[in-house]
Order: sequence, then C-alpha cells, then structure tokens
Amino acid sequence: MVLLRLLADHPAVSSVIPVSSSKAGDALAAIDPGLSSCYPKADITGGKLVSVDEAAAMKPDVVFAALPHLESARICEPFLGKSIVIDLSADFRIRNREVFRKAYGEEPPRPDLLPQAVYGLCEVYRDSIRKADIIANPGCYPTATLLPLIPILRSFPVENLITVNALSGISGAGKKAKIDNLFCERAENTCAYSPGKTHRHSVEIEQELLTMVPEVNLLFTPHLVPLKRGMNITTVITLKEATEKDAILSCLKDFYADSTFVQVVHPRIPETKDVWGTNRCDIGFHLEGKNLILMSVIDNLVKGASGQAVQNMNIRFGLPERQGLRLHGEY
Amino acid sequence: MVLLRLLADHPAVSSVIPVSSSKAGDALAAIDPGLSSCYPKADITGGKLVSVDEAAAMKPDVVFAALPHLESARICEPFLGKSIVIDLSADFRIRNREVFRKAYGEEPPRPDLLPQAVYGLCEVYRDSIRKADIIANPGCYPTATLLPLIPILRSFPVENLITVNALSGISGAGKKAKIDNLFCERAENTCAYSPGKTHRHSVEIEQELLTMVPEVNLLFTPHLVPLKRGMNITTVITLKEATEKDAILSCLKDFYADSTFVQVVHPRIPETKDVWGTNRCDIGFHLEGKNLILMSVIDNLVKGASGQAVQNMNIRFGLPERQGLRLHGEY
Amino acid sequence: MVLLRLLADHPAVSSVIPVSSSKAGDALAAIDPGLSSCYPKADITGGKLVSVDEAAAMKPDVVFAALPHLESARICEPFLGKSIVIDLSADFRIRNREVFRKAYGEEPPRPDLLPQAVYGLCEVYRDSIRKADIIANPGCYPTATLLPLIPILRSFPVENLITVNALSGISGAGKKAKIDNLFCERAENTCAYSPGKTHRHSVEIEQELLTMVPEVNLLFTPHLVPLKRGMNITTVITLKEATEKDAILSCLKDFYADSTFVQVVHPRIPETKDVWGTNRCDIGFHLEGKNLILMSVIDNLVKGASGQAVQNMNIRFGLPERQGLRLHGEY
Amino acid sequence: MVLLRLLADHPAVSSVIPVSSSKAGDALAAIDPGLSSCYPKADITGGKLVSVDEAAAMKPDVVFAALPHLESARICEPFLGKSIVIDLSADFRIRNREVFRKAYGEEPPRPDLLPQAVYGLCEVYRDSIRKADIIANPGCYPTATLLPLIPILRSFPVENLITVNALSGISGAGKKAKIDNLFCERAENTCAYSPGKTHRHSVEIEQELLTMVPEVNLLFTPHLVPLKRGMNITTVITLKEATEKDAILSCLKDFYADSTFVQVVHPRIPETKDVWGTNRCDIGFHLEGKNLILMSVIDNLVKGASGQAVQNMNIRFGLPERQGLRLHGEY
Repeated sequence: MVLLRLLADHPAVSSVIPVSSSKAGDALAAIDPGLSSCYPKADITGGKLVSVDEAAAMKPDVVFAALPHLESARICEPFLGKSIVIDLSADFRIRNREVFRKAYGEEPPRPDLLPQAVYGLCEVYRDSIRKADIIANPGCYPTATLLPLIPILRSFPVENLITVNALSGISGAGKKAKIDNLFCERAENTCAYSPGKTHRHSVEIEQELLTMVPEVNLLFTPHLVPLKRGMNITTVITLKEATEKDAILSCLKDFYADSTFVQVVHPRIPETKDVWGTNRCDIGFHLEGKNLILMSVIDNLVKGASGQAVQNMNIRFGLPERQGLRLHGEY
Repeated sequence: MVLLRLLADHPAVSSVIPVSSSKAGDALAAIDPGLSSCYPKADITGGKLVSVDEAAAMKPDVVFAALPHLESARICEPFLGKSIVIDLSADFRIRNREVFRKAYGEEPPRPDLLPQAVYGLCEVYRDSIRKADIIANPGCYPTATLLPLIPILRSFPVENLITVNALSGISGAGKKAKIDNLFCERAENTCAYSPGKTHRHSVEIEQELLTMVPEVNLLFTPHLVPLKRGMNITTVITLKEATEKDAILSCLKDFYADSTFVQVVHPRIPETKDVWGTNRCDIGFHLEGKNLILMSVIDNLVKGASGQAVQNMNIRFGLPERQGLRLHGEY
Repeated sequence: MVLLRLLADHPAVSSVIPVSSSKAGDALAAIDPGLSSCYPKADITGGKLVSVDEAAAMKPDVVFAALPHLESARICEPFLGKSIVIDLSADFRIRNREVFRKAYGEEPPRPDLLPQAVYGLCEVYRDSIRKADIIANPGCYPTATLLPLIPILRSFPVENLITVNALSGISGAGKKAKIDNLFCERAENTCAYSPGKTHRHSVEIEQELLTMVPEVNLLFTPHLVPLKRGMNITTVITLKEATEKDAILSCLKDFYADSTFVQVVHPRIPETKDVWGTNRCDIGFHLEGKNLILMSVIDNLVKGASGQAVQNMNIRFGLPERQGLRLHGEY
Repeated sequence: MVLLRLLADHPAVSSVIPVSSSKAGDALAAIDPGLSSCYPKADITGGKLVSVDEAAAMKPDVVFAALPHLESARICEPFLGKSIVIDLSADFRIRNREVFRKAYGEEPPRPDLLPQAVYGLCEVYRDSIRKADIIANPGCYPTATLLPLIPILRSFPVENLITVNALSGISGAGKKAKIDNLFCERAENTCAYSPGKTHRHSVEIEQELLTMVPEVNLLFTPHLVPLKRGMNITTVITLKEATEKDAILSCLKDFYADSTFVQVVHPRIPETKDVWGTNRCDIGFHLEGKNLILMSVIDNLVKGASGQAVQNMNIRFGLPERQGLRLHGEY
C-alpha cells in the first residue's frame, strides 16, 4: 500500500494496474480507504483490482511483485521477458540453492532465472541494475545492515565476528491478524526474536558479506520495538589494525558521495524519526580502539521495501534516481 | 518545520528564505537535521537563517509568519503592502477587539489591518482569499470543527447548544521543553485541558458560528491523546426538525463537491491515521432522532496549520489548489 | 488475567481455581507466562486449568465469571445457590427483557434470576451488594460515566440531553486476533466507533439514569485512543437552574466521603495515568453558566472490570473494601 | 516516586519521612497527585516534605538516597553510623578512585567510606548485604546486564570481547524538561546514545566483570526506545570451548535456584511487558556454535532502581526478600 502511494505521486508513472489473485474485481478504494476515492492512475482498470492474467495482457513496463516468498516467482512468470520484474520477495535474492532450501524450507521456485536476477541494493549495484530484467529487491534488515558495512569491509581488514543488533518497527511483521501483533502486546513492550541464524535475513546478509570476506561469523539479533515504522541497526566489528576516525569517515563519505539517499551524519547519531517516510539511510559510527560500532537507520517500509523498489525502477529506466521519492521526513 | 518540508517539494516555489530573529546566521541544517544537508531552495541565503530585515530586503512574493500570538503581526510589518502575508498566529483572526482582549489578554496588535485580513478557511472563503493581502490562517481546532459544521448550520436550523469534544496529538503543544510534554507524561495518558471557554480556540470557533446563527451556546472540551499528530473532533448538535440521513449526506457532499481535500466518508467513521501527513479533512456523521453527531479528522500540523497555509498560497496566486500538498497519507 | 493477578496478592484469598471449558488440563503458566511459574494459590488444582464441573465440585466461596455475554449466565448455573456469583458479563445487568433483546440480539439467558441480581456499582449500591447472591459487575463505560453523574442527578434538576464522550484504551477490545486491534492500526490513530445507541453500554447507562430522571436523551460516543489501559469520560449536562461551583464540589465530595476509591480532584483535571493500575475513579468538573462538564477517569481493566469485581467480593464477604486493591498507580 | 509507592504498600514499613532540600514544607500530595491524598505513612511529618536535618533528627532505621551523583554521598552524611544507608546514586558504586574520576569528572565524594560500601546486586552479594551499613544500589543497565553474565563467566572461559546492546525506556532519563525527552521526539523514534565507554554505566559493568575475568573488552551500546518503562539487554559473548545448551541452562537455573526474582525463561525469549511493574529479571539465551546470546529484561524503575533498593532493605533487615515487591506484572 506504501508502494501505491509512492507511484501515485511519481511524475513518470502514468498508469497503475493494481493486481490481486484473491480480490480481483474489488474496488481499490474498498481495500485501502486511506488512499481516498481518487486514484486516477488506476483508471486504466476502472479503479478495480485485476487478475494476474488481465494485468499481463496489458503489457506493463514494470511489474512490482509484493507477494509471500515462493509464491512471488510463480506469479511473475507471465510477465518475464515482457516487463521488467522488481520482486520484493526472497525468491530471486539467494543465489545458492542449498542456502535457500535451508532458510525457506523448499527449493527456490525458479533457480533457472537466478543468473539473470540482480540484487537491487541500489547504491552498491547501480550499474548492474541498469541492465537487469529481474531485480531482487533486498530485505529491510539486509538493506540497513549492508549499507554501512560494505564500504568498510571493502577498505579495512576485519575480524570474523560481526555482531548485528537490529530494532524493527511492527509494520515489518505485515498486516496479519495475529495475537503477537496486537496493540496491547506490542505497545510498552520489546523483545528479541529469531536470534542468530534462525532469522532468514541472516543468510541474505551473509551472502553479501561473503563476497568481500572469505569467512564470516555473523551473529544477528533482531528485536521488536513499539514503532509503526523504523529500523535501527547497531553493528559491531573489530578492525584488524587500529585506524583513525577520519579514515572511517572518509571511507563512508567517499563511497556514498553520489548517493543522495545515503547520508553519513557522523558525529551525530542517526535517529529513526529523521528518516521516517523517506527513502534515506542515515549512517553514524563510534570507534573505540579497534572496535567499530556502525549505526544505521531506515524506514523499513520505504528504503527497506517499496521505496527502494521505486528507486530500482528509476535506475532501470534511466529516470532521475530521486524521482517520486522523499528525501525529507515528516518530522 | 513542516512548512519547510512542504515548500521544499512545491513545484511552483523556486526559493525559500528561512527567517529567524534569534538564530539569524545559523545554518538551517543545524536547526533541523531531519531536513538533510541539501535544501537547495535556501541557496538564496547560503542555506542560512536570515533576519527579518534581510528577508524584507529580498522582497519575497509571500511571507509565512509562524510566530507566537502578539509577536506575529509586528514582525509582518516590513512586508505589508509588498508581500502577501499568510499569518499562522491569531493576530488577524479575531475581528472583535473586545473578544481578542479577553482571550489573549492584550489589545490586538494591528486592529487597523483587521478589515484587510481574510479568514483563511480555504474551502469556505476561497473567493475572498483570491484577493486578500493578509490571510489569517485558521487554528487547528477551528479548522476541524468548522468544516463539518458550516454546511449543516447554513442548511438546517439547530438548537443553541453545540458540544464539541476534541482530541489532539501532542505536537499541537509545540516544541517547548515542558514537563507536561515529556514522553513519560503523555504516553499511556489522556486528559482534558482548558475546558469550555478557557481555550482560546473556543472564541475563534464562536466568531464563525455567529455569522450563521444569532446565538450559540458553545461547549468546547479539548483533550490530549498520545499521538504525535492527529486531531479528532466529535460535535453534537440538535436539529430543530427531524430530517433524513440522506439530507445530511447530500448537504455535506454538495458543499464540498469541488473541494478535493474535504472528503465525506460516511458511512465509514473517519480515522486520524487516514489523514496523517495529508492536507485532508475526512468527515463522517451519525444521526439519531434530531441529534446529529459530526465526526471530523485532520492532521493538526498540515490541514490544521502549514498545509492550509500552502493551500492559501496556492489559491491566492492562482496555482492549482492541490499543488505541493498530499492527498494520500503514509498509512 | 488481571483478575488472577489481583487474587494472587489478596490476603484473604487462600486458593484460586482457574477454570476453562476449552483449555481444561493446560498449565496456567502456559496460558500466561507473565504470571511466572509460581502461582501457589492454584496448587489446589496442581497449577492446571480445570473444567466447570470440576470447579463446581470444589465448592468455592465465590465464582468470577468472565465470559462473553450470553455464555456467562449458563456457565454460572452449577454454582448458583452454592457460591456467590460475580458475573462480569452483561447477562445479569439489564433488568428489562426487551431492552436486553434489542441490545444483545437474544433473550436474556436467565431472566428468572434477574430479581436476585444486584448491579455491582460498589459506591452506589454497597448496601444491596452486602446481601447479594448474584452480583452483576458493571461495564467499564457505565462505571466511569455513572460515578460522577449519579450524585449530580440525585441533587440537581437537569435538562434531558446528556452528552457523553468517552475515550478507551485498546485493552477494552479484549485479546482477539483482529486486524482492527493490530499495533499498526491503533498506534498514531484515533477514531470514534459505535456512536449513539449503537453501543451496548449506552443502554446500561440509560437504565441507571432512568432510576433518577423521568426521561433522558443520552448521546454516547466512544472513541479508541492509543493506550493499553485507561478510560476518560467527558459528560456534558445542562442544569435547569444556575448554581455555584462550590455546590457541585460539595455534592460530589459528600457523596464519596466514605469511598476511598473515588477521588474528587477538582480543581485539577483528572488524567488516566494517575489511576493506571489502580481501582480508583478520579473526578473533576468545569461549570460554565448552567453547563456542567464532568470529567472522570478509570483504569478500564481494574475499576472498569476485575478490580471492581474484587471490590464487590470484599463488600459481600465483609472484608475491608480496599483489601488486595491498589490505591496508588504505577506513575 | 516509585519508591514511595513501594514503601506505601510494604507491610514492615510503618512510617515514611519524605525528604527534600529544595521543597521542604511542601505537601507530598502537591508534588505527586498520583499518590492520592491519603499517604498515611507520612503522618509522622504531617504529610509534608522535611529537610535533611529534620529527617536525621527523627533517626530513621534506613535512608534511601535518590539524588544526583556527587550530591548523594554528601546528603547521606548526617545519617551515617545511625541509619542504614541505601544509596541509589553512583557515589559508592565505583571502588577505584581513578575510574570514578574519569567517568564522573570529579573525585568520589567520600572515598574513605568506599571500603564499607557493598554493591547491592541482591542475588549475587546477598551475604555481604546482610551486614552492610552502606549499600550502593546498582544502576539499571548494570543490573540487567550482570545478572545473566555473572553465572556464565563464573563457570565458562570466554573470549575478551563482550558486546552489550541495551534498550531502555524513556523513564531512564528522569523527569527533566528537556527537548530530547518530549513526547514528539521520542514517540515513533529510536536511537543509540553514548555508545561504548562514553556511557558511565559501562565502567560499572566493567568493574564487576573484572572480578571474574582478568581482561575484558566491553562494548556497550545503549539505545532509547519508546517505552515508559522497560529495559532489554542483548549480550553476545564467545565461549572458548563449545558446550551444550543444557549446560548453559543448568548453570543459570542453578545459580538462581533460590532467587525468586530472577527467572530463567528459556526456551521462551523474555519480553519487557512480562516484568513491567515487577522486581523480576527474566533471562533467556540462544547458543550458536561457541557464540552465546544472553537476553535479559527488567523494569528499569523497579529491579533497576527502587525495587532493588527495597529488596536490599529486606535483605539487610532480615525481612522476607519478596516483601512489598511484585512478582506478577500488570499484563
């Protein structure tokens, strides 16, 4: 639904075809009253949700698939080769079949297509995204964790143990009617969940880290905190050799010099409210001897999902990267 | 700060001059890190806050005055006659000097200018706003209360007693370091405050009601609820004659037929989350015999303040009324 | 579960028999881990939930029935005549069969027992509660609305129209897995719901008001606000004759002179945080001409449910009324 | 204020003398209306706050000092040798003068008394507390961090690097009128603060760890999360030798076998809501190879401050350790 809002205000998007297997025929306004009665970009379908086949027949330029894992790749099939596919599930993210099987409990649905898929971490893989037919939009935890880590790991040798402590707003859990997600369970409450390798995003992070370091001992602990939106990552690594604060600062600033959405805010400490509603990732750090604490924040529903998907579309279609995306938050 | 964000994204606004008496010379980014380092529209001042005199010398088309009551009118003086003034304080809202004196404890600062000032309730006074040199931007409570009430009072005779129960998010109190506004005081807490005529917005509402009914017994009770943003008004009136639901519905729909930002959502009940971050006012109602409950919600910082100010600018300068303003919320 | 906590710390309660039709046999600790592993008062059942029949065979002194409406009275049957029944449902609250049928869509389950049931609004019906075999524990909205209203209506003639605006924390909705109760739906959101006579508590309030005034035009609008607990009632009435603030203050203070749990805090305005976790009802008011605004706050899960149930037990068994109940909140 | 509430309900406390240097003479009820008008235990002072000298003249059995660091020790002086002193500041916590100076920027106020002071981590130093004249009540972060760590470090050899990620509710910041603590700054927001050794509690934790391991590389990162109360600690250590889950579980369970307030909830993951309002510390863990994640939660205002102070009083005076303290939370 955040995606629909982003597309509504995107100047280069003229028509939007809302798709639903189960609710085809329903009015869009009935599904999400917050969208208001006027969503003129959906006029192409009469303001109604249509089925996958109806949508495919309309030959859209780009398809955003925001379905559960395993289901997503299958739904994308009628569009493959005709439309650019931006998939928000994990189906095209994990390149190793064995790793996918362990994490998701099934074979990857279309392993044959994995070589064509590009991991859509925009600021890092921009060049490949420009040519990709399938873009695997990264998970929220991997996005926020990898953005500060990648420049550091590419520049400094580090010890194997990488400790990631993550805080997530409740919207990360989706809109399912579960006791665990009730207001009275989550307000005035925090807890860790799926610690260590029991969280699927752990293998997604690990896959990227292994492109830079030969071995990694990743310890990832996500927590739920009472936010509607927001993700706050604290990563602790140990450098093999002592270095200066300025070297860290330059490394991060240089890497993201041309990336408006990633802001190195050191010596300020990033706060989730500053990026709320935006496509930004704000990064800070603290160096103590050889220990380096990296702090990064995103809006899990924007840079951690729909916003990055739109950014990927912008890159793929040669549009200005910022188009239709917010740089300034609400606060 | 919400105003700066709105102007940043407004396509018809090319330059913004940030003004501060006390912080002239400071960088804008230092005042509000959430704005990010790049606010190119302020390049005209080198990204710095400037004094009132410096700003006046730059002859802007329009001045937004967002100062405390009594101070605001005085600061506007150097701009009067040169720029269009949109004042977010109460200084030009109350037309009766005696009423102003009672509510604000002082003489109105520029009573001579009151005849030139137009009350900027956009959907109601659009025609006068088009020609106004001074626009008195309405308060948040009056905006949300009057929008559903005015069409009804213009069409149906009602009893004198009008009961308004209002809920406001904490941002309504501004950003002052007061014990009362601390997180631990306001989270998991609600209370009424300034009940009845002790709240200044009560006289502002009353002034408008008296243009439609000869006598009014207004009972206004505002409450604080733990929201960052949002305002929810429940107004109870008694019709002199029984009527049908459909008559109420048509009355409201017809009045706002050409006003995108006011949406009559009946039979749904409006929720503040649907208008969060938008310039909308959503209206619902419940009719029981002769008793009519009107329900209206706004984002107090947008339609209740900066958003309506931008809408007033749009109207005054003949721009599309929606320009730079959001119709779809974040949720 | 709040009830179990209250009983755990009640010095006059030696054993607790936890009952569940559907989960008989399960360990209490599995149902509610917050209770900790040690709930020695349930040793009588081996720390397990038991069935209704097993519980009845143990002949408890008092039974608390906290079941959905219509189901509750039926479950109480095996205990009637043997144990004192304190029923937290509406089954014994509404004395008029026709009124019950309209509000609950069915016949009252045991109309024959209605004459024996006493409405357990402790401070008002203390004398009858002392002798009651069936105590109908009041709803949360009626408790908080009636406590300030009853003394006033018994002392001053008022106009028919009584407007009640109520704010409730989300725990009032129970612990059901509904989309509407999710954190992301309720945080940063408020809305009215079931306005006017569409809320069942409206008839419960009306029934009590009609014992004091011949005719009443009650307009009750409940709202959801993002609190875990707390209820805040703003009632507007119009006195037939002007009176002094002191007369109102004395009326309230005198009525509750011997009732520790009802505190008249005028000229302070009551706040829900002050009664959070307590069995208190704090009352304030504002008089403006003949219009009187009454403000009252309770913790909906304590004075609005389990706490008042324990208070009823205390009264019925001649225990100190305060025993096992908190007078001071957490904050 | 939490302390006053705990003492109000403590059966072994007959009189309470509320002390304030700056507000002596004021009524207790004016300072904290939530306490209600009746606090009979303060009748000894006529319900008023008294000065330090007046309090000392009344020769209390025990003094709780809840003052800012550096001020606390000085205020305790008139009581030393006459009353048992339980100090909630850091003044008697840090045994090394140099360490204190670095962390607090001044000499420890009474270094001569440090040898008499016992670190009041109840479950660990119970025997020494029984004989102590000065009890240094631990900080909230150290309490929640040390309780799971101490049994492990006493039983298993571990690598030097100990990473502690901590989440704290906003009440940890006290009741000062600061912009940073406003509702609108903290709601829907999280951030790290004072990372690494820049937080004073870091040295307090380190001091205790050094009693068990010869060298420690502690990396402590506290975060603010939008809770009124609650503290959630995630500690990552690496064991020198692989071990079994059961060995970890037994180690923790055995150590706390006789400590009601520390509950090992494995395989459940602890949640702050379960300990809200209680004096409990709930502990969980996750073992992955040699990496061990310890998870612990407390209510920062109870076990992290006033509750542990009362527990210390109970231990010191030979009272039942649980007396006046809650084991079951509100939820």
